[in-house]
Amino acid sequence: MARILVINPNTTASMTATIAEAARSVASPATEIVARNPEDGPVSIESHYDEAISAAAMLQEIRRGEAEGFDGFVIACFGDPGLLAAREMATGPVIGIAEAAMHAASFIATKFSVVTTLSRTCVIAEHLVRNYGVEHFCAGIRACDVPVLALEDESSGAYQLIADECRRAIAEDGANAIVLGCGGMADLTARLQAEIGVPVIDGVTAAVKFVESLVGLGLRTSKHGDLAFPGPKTYSGAFSQYAPSQH
Amino acid sequence: MARILVINPNTTASMTATIAEAARSVASPATEIVARNPEDGPVSIESHYDEAISAAAMLQEIRRGEAEGFDGFVIACFGDPGLLAAREMATGPVIGIAEAAMHAASFIATKFSVVTTLSRTCVIAEHLVRNYGVEHFCAGIRACDVPVLALEDESSGAYQLIADECRRAIAEDGANAIVLGCGGMADLTARLQAEIGVPVIDGVTAAVKFVESLVGLGLRTSKHGDLAFPGPKTYSGAFSQYAPSQH
Amino acid sequence: MARILVINPNTTASMTATIAEAARSVASPATEIVARNPEDGPVSIESHYDEAISAAAMLQEIRRGEAEGFDGFVIACFGDPGLLAAREMATGPVIGIAEAAMHAASFIATKFSVVTTLSRTCVIAEHLVRNYGVEHFCAGIRACDVPVLALEDESSGAYQLIADECRRAIAEDGANAIVLGCGGMADLTARLQAEIGVPVIDGVTAAVKFVESLVGLGLRTSKHGDLAFPGPKTYSGAFSQYAPSQH
Amino acid sequence: MARILVINPNTTASMTATIAEAARSVASPATEIVARNPEDGPVSIESHYDEAISAAAMLQEIRRGEAEGFDGFVIACFGDPGLLAAREMATGPVIGIAEAAMHAASFIATKFSVVTTLSRTCVIAEHLVRNYGVEHFCAGIRACDVPVLALEDESSGAYQLIADECRRAIAEDGANAIVLGCGGMADLTARLQAEIGVPVIDGVTAAVKFVESLVGLGLRTSKHGDLAFPGPKTYSGAFSQYAPSQH
Amino acid sequence: MARILVINPNTTASMTATIAEAARSVASPATEIVARNPEDGPVSIESHYDEAISAAAMLQEIRRGEAEGFDGFVIACFGDPGLLAAREMATGPVIGIAEAAMHAASFIATKFSVVTTLSRTCVIAEHLVRNYGVEHFCAGIRACDVPVLALEDESSGAYQLIADECRRAIAEDGANAIVLGCGGMADLTARLQAEIGVPVIDGVTAAVKFVESLVGLGLRTSKHGDLAFPGPKTYSGAFSQYAPSQH
Amino acid sequence: MARILVINPNTTASMTATIAEAARSVASPATEIVARNPEDGPVSIESHYDEAISAAAMLQEIRRGEAEGFDGFVIACFGDPGLLAAREMATGPVIGIAEAAMHAASFIATKFSVVTTLSRTCVIAEHLVRNYGVEHFCAGIRACDVPVLALEDESSGAYQLIADECRRAIAEDGANAIVLGCGGMADLTARLQAEIGVPVIDGVTAAVKFVESLVGLGLRTSKHGDLAFPGPKTYSGAFSQYAPSQH
Repeated sequence: MARILVINPNTTASMTATIAEAARSVASPATEIVARNPEDGPVSIESHYDEAISAAAMLQEIRRGEAEGFDGFVIACFGDPGLLAAREMATGPVIGIAEAAMHAASFIATKFSVVTTLSRTCVIAEHLVRNYGVEHFCAGIRACDVPVLALEDESSGAYQLIADECRRAIAEDGANAIVLGCGGMADLTARLQAEIGVPVIDGVTAAVKFVESLVGLGLRTSKHGDLAFPGPKTYSGAFSQYAPSQH
Repeated sequence: MARILVINPNTTASMTATIAEAARSVASPATEIVARNPEDGPVSIESHYDEAISAAAMLQEIRRGEAEGFDGFVIACFGDPGLLAAREMATGPVIGIAEAAMHAASFIATKFSVVTTLSRTCVIAEHLVRNYGVEHFCAGIRACDVPVLALEDESSGAYQLIADECRRAIAEDGANAIVLGCGGMADLTARLQAEIGVPVIDGVTAAVKFVESLVGLGLRTSKHGDLAFPGPKTYSGAFSQYAPSQH
Repeated sequence: MARILVINPNTTASMTATIAEAARSVASPATEIVARNPEDGPVSIESHYDEAISAAAMLQEIRRGEAEGFDGFVIACFGDPGLLAAREMATGPVIGIAEAAMHAASFIATKFSVVTTLSRTCVIAEHLVRNYGVEHFCAGIRACDVPVLALEDESSGAYQLIADECRRAIAEDGANAIVLGCGGMADLTARLQAEIGVPVIDGVTAAVKFVESLVGLGLRTSKHGDLAFPGPKTYSGAFSQYAPSQH
Repeated sequence: MARILVINPNTTASMTATIAEAARSVASPATEIVARNPEDGPVSIESHYDEAISAAAMLQEIRRGEAEGFDGFVIACFGDPGLLAAREMATGPVIGIAEAAMHAASFIATKFSVVTTLSRTCVIAEHLVRNYGVEHFCAGIRACDVPVLALEDESSGAYQLIADECRRAIAEDGANAIVLGCGGMADLTARLQAEIGVPVIDGVTAAVKFVESLVGLGLRTSKHGDLAFPGPKTYSGAFSQYAPSQH
Repeated sequence: MARILVINPNTTASMTATIAEAARSVASPATEIVARNPEDGPVSIESHYDEAISAAAMLQEIRRGEAEGFDGFVIACFGDPGLLAAREMATGPVIGIAEAAMHAASFIATKFSVVTTLSRTCVIAEHLVRNYGVEHFCAGIRACDVPVLALEDESSGAYQLIADECRRAIAEDGANAIVLGCGGMADLTARLQAEIGVPVIDGVTAAVKFVESLVGLGLRTSKHGDLAFPGPKTYSGAFSQYAPSQH
Repeated sequence: MARILVINPNTTASMTATIAEAARSVASPATEIVARNPEDGPVSIESHYDEAISAAAMLQEIRRGEAEGFDGFVIACFGDPGLLAAREMATGPVIGIAEAAMHAASFIATKFSVVTTLSRTCVIAEHLVRNYGVEHFCAGIRACDVPVLALEDESSGAYQLIADECRRAIAEDGANAIVLGCGGMADLTARLQAEIGVPVIDGVTAAVKFVESLVGLGLRTSKHGDLAFPGPKTYSGAFSQYAPSQH
């Protein structure tokens, strides 16, 4: 049995609930999903700055989860903030939802487009595409200029904007799969896939299955070298409780 | 419940048995694993030529498996022969074991080395590393010059040669994980990992879990565009029975 | 004097005749061109699956040609199926027509576009562009959605569709040369070049000249390492006669 | 006249003093250098985790500096933590010391090696090399396994270890310039350069000059698109005071 | 105090004056700017051929300037002709204006477009983008089909054509900064920046500041290895006076 | 019948004779080889500076050869100086010997190493490897620190040094073919290949065959766009006779 902690790095509890529901909908019977968000930090993540601050708060959830013995972790924000730092702090595997979705897309399609929220976040996805080595699989990165929190509001018309952008990605980019660029879109996947006619990949569910897979394979984060636990060290002031402890 | 067909593209039944056992050892209770090898083709795959011929035979197993309604497929040879052709012929996901192992490694380590059989197959792995976009994660590709079939023979000393090469990969390449470069090594994973102290990733088991994941996510091979079923067409002569049929 | 075997990997004899005629039109007086197609396999190659099956049949023509002492080989299908396997089986040089055309284009132009048959084959050309390192020379890959066998039928209007796509490549991609993306287009080169005003490169003729060049230079496929003859090995069943023999 | 804020993202004041002295030693007479470190966070930065936490604290110094009207900013940690987030929060230019040193090296040499502190930080430098596009200029990334704070202690023998590693970089990597991989090495540059005979580049001083340059050119961070000020947004809990305000 | 020689590689003195004025407008009080052009060579540089010939003449200015003891050099043509050869002949730093502008853009923006003169020079800029490693920062390279010398003629309407192309770069390429692709545009920067609303970067001024920076840092061209002074050697005929002398 | 002008860009007539002999040894009976060197410029090319000056002189030979109606051109210096400028000035194809050798190597081997003269020229070869897109085929670039003119002197021991370096390339780089890195090595090819046991590729002979091929294919340098003839323009002073004329 695997216990997986799914961390929504923003502080909006309703989005955490959406994410939790999506995670549980795909988890194996033997998997326990716990979904949390930090109490500290931005209510949504739509800039490098939001990412940087939320990463610090998210990492505290990793620490806490590690102490509680979780077998693996999902970082449920499409920018995968703090991913390598989280791997340093965790024994089990840690996967980001952008990472999971992009890799999954490369398994079933030759070209995917990312459809995300605000235009200014496209550059974040673009950097991830390069970091994960999927440049040749990525046909486009598109924003529908829906703020993240509008996804929580059914009257916002967000679904239609997203569906339209997906259709443009297929027609104009030549995409044959869609990667949804926000954890808050996890509940739209099935409906979108049914309507637009190509696979639609949500990172939350993909990450849950991949963490389950790694746990099932007995694969944990390598603690030899680059991702070893940070050595114990003094942290000053307001961050003193963030200091890495002895392993 | 998922029914997964694991195809060993060479014709050596004992290796198919090894692969099947590894596959079943990680499969979820709800997954049925069927492992097969073609009756036609090379007894082991150690060259581009062996790959090319085995790909044709392997594709017939995909066709047969597709007709039998399998939910997903694993190509259990580290060169991932015929992968894109297999995706064209399959409704469900198809994953190669090199692909699975390399992606898994990138989830838990910053640098992996591949440890494979014969030197002449290193160039095959090198091309896959580029095709899958994991150049920046790959610290080295190493052969221990053990023929594939020697893996089936405990008296061959193969295990020790592989373990030694893994240790050199860690010391000389800076690898912090090992990817095993042959489906026939699947039974060595646990022992190697225990001895060498870094994660050791076998593609057979990794591919089974990733196919399970995709099936669990409802993600199938995209049939829009590049990977659509090949159109019906005449095939001549000895290959007439290989002709794609109407979908 | 060089004896070059030009292999059309599909089984359509009329296309082989077109290819042979193109090959002879550029061969040196001292070169003997023999053009063949396998009797087994697809009548045209328009998918990864068609490629994989035709590669097996094509390789038998390489084996036969090698036994007959040909000095060099051309694989006359734009996907260059089985190229590295063919090199393993051959003493002399082996060149694919996509490879030849793309390299030739890089010698006389800064940007070429590929104009090919069906859209679904564009991804094959795209992978070759990467494998051959000509990404920076390739301005676009375009399909005119003419099936391969329509090229054999003058009434199909194929010529006009191809010419129109070439013009769009010049205008929209900024191409200053065109690479024709199918062996069956070899007879259109001169007319196209005269009409569209930029160099038009057919891979069949380019490959013949490059194989002639390598033969004239005394350069054969390197048998040291990666492309050495495959070792002798048992092949089972229907493929038993494909087994590599002792060298 | 330019007022430049140099931020040491760790909390060790003696290192901030070293950095300040180096910065002032190269600043133009018309430039005012202010050097600060956050009060909160790690005493040194030697892991992704240290980086992630220090980035949050560093960004508060950017906010404060922006409010005080600084003309430009230097992030004086070789991992350039929080660089893009800092650019979002700043009107003037923001440069990281790794970025500055790597670019400077490419102006005066064909190959540089980075010589840094702990081995586990090499992967951070490696990622920056890729992000900044200097792969072809980087001959190697080497650690001398000196902890960052040992640089502050003359009796640690750090200087000699660094000098030895620089010599190995020249001999073994073929480097013709050295980039020092830690802000705390800023005071060693002149001595090292005199002893090892190739240019030695410290990022602190390079970044100060490049920020001065950009200020002198009237070039500020582009506020069109990706690096625009983050929109005003609620931040919860302990990070509530980090919320971006209206611009 | 730094003495910087700014070399306009073409022979048009009025353009040299424009460049000199721009250079002086940003130079520090302690910097002396000398601007020169060769007497021999093309009146403008608009092709690879113009570049090749002007490079020879420009290098004589480097030799002369080196003999006169200049502290650093700027090559004020956007193709950066002869840059590495100039570095071999110089003790101090040498920077090309394309190099300077592209690096500066990467410090303040995520995406820049180059706006240059004639279409046929775009390929030159494209090669520089790759050589300098800024592919991921470059959103587009655009020509406004204004001949270089038309920039000297106010009645040519060049300004408006350039401004329009900049606006298209922002709208169509997603650029958030503009790099001007000709030394002769140096006097347009401020007006363009004010009108189009994103940073506009001229290479002449950027290069002057970066050379000043390197001089201020005590960084000279590495004379270890690749960029060492060429050994003394006989040059024949008309180029006999170009022969490198003993250092 | 093809008339090919082979230009040795340095002024050493004995090397031109060596090159001419190599060129004629492989040319078809129907090909006329004319080999020339400029009277002006360096006696050997061993630096970027030598390259830049020789390029100017070489281009005059292209102009003269173009006026005389040569069908194609070879630039017989391994740095391929002035290649794109030469293409602008020529109607027929122009190939550099590094370009020819590297492409030829990619046709017959998976990995080549370059063995060249002086260490300082390795960086030139490295840049060409990137420009021609053969990074993945290049296993190493090695100097044997033989000055170019020592190749003309049998008593220099150059042959042995080169042969030894070739053997190291095979053993240490894993090369399965050797590219000779200097036009002056053209006469060593056959002996080296016989002794070291892998294909040895000389660019002079390879370029002659490839130019012959292009001429035979009716392929000329594209005059549409980037490589069009430079427009007529005033050149001043000593270079006035270099001015492009009307086409």
